[in-house]
Amino acid sequence: METNLLNDDLSLENLLAHWQGLTHAERETIFKMLGRMDQEDLFLNLASDYQLEIFQELPAAEKRSWMRLLAPDDIADLLQNMDEEEQKTNMRYLDYPTMIEVKALMAYAEDEAGGLMNSRFARLRPEMTVEEAIRYLRAQSKSQIETIYYAYVLDRHQVLLGVVSLRELFLADAKITISEIMNTDIVTVLQDEDQESISKTFSNHNFLALPVVDETNVMKGIITGDDVIEVIEEEATEDIQKIGGMEALGEPYLEIDLLTMIKKRAGWLMALFIGEMFTATAMSHYEGEIAKAVVLALFIPLVISSGGNSGSQATTLIIRAMALGEVRLKDWWRVFSRELLAGLSLGCILGLIGMIRILLWPNHQTLYGEHYFLVALTVSCSLIGIVLWGTLAGSMLPFFLRRVGLDPATSSAPFVATLVDVTGLIIYFTVASLFLKGILL
Amino acid sequence: METNLLNDDLSLENLLAHWQGLTHAERETIFKMLGRMDQEDLFLNLASDYQLEIFQELPAAEKRSWMRLLAPDDIADLLQNMDEEEQKTNMRYLDYPTMIEVKALMAYAEDEAGGLMNSRFARLRPEMTVEEAIRYLRAQSKSQIETIYYAYVLDRHQVLLGVVSLRELFLADAKITISEIMNTDIVTVLQDEDQESISKTFSNHNFLALPVVDETNVMKGIITGDDVIEVIEEEATEDIQKIGGMEALGEPYLEIDLLTMIKKRAGWLMALFIGEMFTATAMSHYEGEIAKAVVLALFIPLVISSGGNSGSQATTLIIRAMALGEVRLKDWWRVFSRELLAGLSLGCILGLIGMIRILLWPNHQTLYGEHYFLVALTVSCSLIGIVLWGTLAGSMLPFFLRRVGLDPATSSAPFVATLVDVTGLIIYFTVASLFLKGILL
Repeated sequence: METNLLNDDLSLENLLAHWQGLTHAERETIFKMLGRMDQEDLFLNLASDYQLEIFQELPAAEKRSWMRLLAPDDIADLLQNMDEEEQKTNMRYLDYPTMIEVKALMAYAEDEAGGLMNSRFARLRPEMTVEEAIRYLRAQSKSQIETIYYAYVLDRHQVLLGVVSLRELFLADAKITISEIMNTDIVTVLQDEDQESISKTFSNHNFLALPVVDETNVMKGIITGDDVIEVIEEEATEDIQKIGGMEALGEPYLEIDLLTMIKKRAGWLMALFIGEMFTATAMSHYEGEIAKAVVLALFIPLVISSGGNSGSQATTLIIRAMALGEVRLKDWWRVFSRELLAGLSLGCILGLIGMIRILLWPNHQTLYGEHYFLVALTVSCSLIGIVLWGTLAGSMLPFFLRRVGLDPATSSAPFVATLVDVTGLIIYFTVASLFLKGILL
Repeated sequence: METNLLNDDLSLENLLAHWQGLTHAERETIFKMLGRMDQEDLFLNLASDYQLEIFQELPAAEKRSWMRLLAPDDIADLLQNMDEEEQKTNMRYLDYPTMIEVKALMAYAEDEAGGLMNSRFARLRPEMTVEEAIRYLRAQSKSQIETIYYAYVLDRHQVLLGVVSLRELFLADAKITISEIMNTDIVTVLQDEDQESISKTFSNHNFLALPVVDETNVMKGIITGDDVIEVIEEEATEDIQKIGGMEALGEPYLEIDLLTMIKKRAGWLMALFIGEMFTATAMSHYEGEIAKAVVLALFIPLVISSGGNSGSQATTLIIRAMALGEVRLKDWWRVFSRELLAGLSLGCILGLIGMIRILLWPNHQTLYGEHYFLVALTVSCSLIGIVLWGTLAGSMLPFFLRRVGLDPATSSAPFVATLVDVTGLIIYFTVASLFLKGILL
């Protein structure tokens, strides 16, 4: 019955494409319908969370053989998601050298280069000939090496000297030595480099794999493109969720426990609510003005939301540009000047539309009173000020946050909107008292 | 002087890491400081936009030799960013077979599989032995094949039969035929598949390259992981910018012409402003109520912004989950039920905080009048309604947009906030008239 969900197509491709859309129970049923070979194929190709789900349902007697299917970095990922007790039990299924390797990998944080890398890679010595190297690689490829598309040339202290692609090996004369054909201008990542910086390195280059080294250039492992794709997706998801005004969920929407999700959303929502309370405080200062000129109250949502919207735009732009490395801390002044002009132009556009809206509205005089022109002027001028302020605040906040060591993405659209709402009210009533003092106020 | 920006380090790695952070003029100066070999290295590793920048500054006499450095898919990318006249001129620098290939590649949209793929890949015939295959690949690798890490097995009509990784070739007995060792359960992408779907296929699997085929399984080219990384970054940037309430810029923040950027931001800002004008219209309906009970006006920004914030959260979550394929159109009911519970809980939390805030505020009686408890009740109950409404509207809008064939990311945080502002006012004043009719109103 459940296979209807997959149109009765149990090919690996179809399973992988739809796996995350299925419920836990559906996944379990389908997995049981597969033959052992297909089960293994599926298991090997799934992301680590889904591997864990399958692994935990396996009979204890089978766990050993399934675990041994995986490469050490994948085993480390699998174990990382278990509790300590479970880790210990499962660690016992590994042979001794693999266990040592897995433990070493687990010592890195999951989002550092060390935590993403695979410690089995193809090594060559600089003094080998091309012929020897090909023979040697052929022997190495029998053990579980994730990629032999690049071979790394190390000295006897494991210091990285160069890299040779298989393509270059194929092209080269069989008799010359590796040191003559290896590339020595190598792009590396440091073992404690974080995800964001690694994915930047990957997207700036066109390599399928990057070597991971320590401070003394000793080679520790490799990271391949597919690991990075997962990381980039995760990073973008985190940023998007923060921009939307919540803690990053860290789990797929339909998978996460409802209570956990509510907790993660409630935190920010409460913080924003408490921030927004200052609007009530600000408003109570102007209670007298509102009582005298109720017409002013009518435009409050309009003017303050415009500040919020322009602030959202600016902050979102800058957060993303920072994440992509397009904008750095030292660029704050260039950004400030651009946003000053952008904010001023956008403010004037909205101010003009606001003015026209009030002056051309049918029976504006009955609605907005005899001083409708002064009201229009108030709304229009405050719009210029508020949009300019929203734009500048929204664009500068990510710089401030990064400067003090926080994640710029925390400066979410709702956060900026809240900030601008409170100050927007002050701008609005200040402009109003300028134009309407002695007339309406 | 400009090299200070790079700490006097002109290594390829440092250049690539900082290239996009430099100004146009700085890039030009630095490029001229490099030797020809380093220039070529840099050129080959840059993204297509920056390649074009360099290419256009080259003396006409040198263009031919630089163009010929590039693989056909990279040439196609380069030409795609030129105007028609320039394309024609530069096309003449290519040899005939390359020109034919480049033209074929350019016929695909840039964001389809066909537009991303490279048409030079390693081909094998099923009847070859492993030994013949290795010799044959070695010969093929002398032409510009982007990846020989997988070899694709085609029949005489170019139909894709299977795939063999180099690793498997190395492992296999030299005498058996390719058809015996090739994998026939192949993950492919269709030539007209779009970026989003391709990147999903990539992140669901662990392949370094995917074959591109037409409807009859004729192989057209390959896509490698590094192409996909660029695409994923671009897709995420577009979504983030839309969520922030603007048109996707399509260019790096510091590169884009200021006027173009203002235009792209003004469009949405104006649309939102016009939408938000309905708040003024709604408010004018309640002018009488506000005049009678000015205290009600004080809480307007607080209550409506809470709806906007909860709506932003919900819409951002669902847009991202859809982009990642975690949530599909058919899941709308599951999402609705989750969001109903989430919205109700979040509304109750904020309602409670709002109630406490009003009741415990120093001199609440002077500020909010003798009926302060009823005012607190009004604020609190409207918060529950507005947060629930914001959450449901925010989560269902992306489904609606996708259903009618629009991009769900259009349902940006500011868009939802605007929608919820107007309806939020109506909810607030309706609740107020329920509790305060005959007392304050």
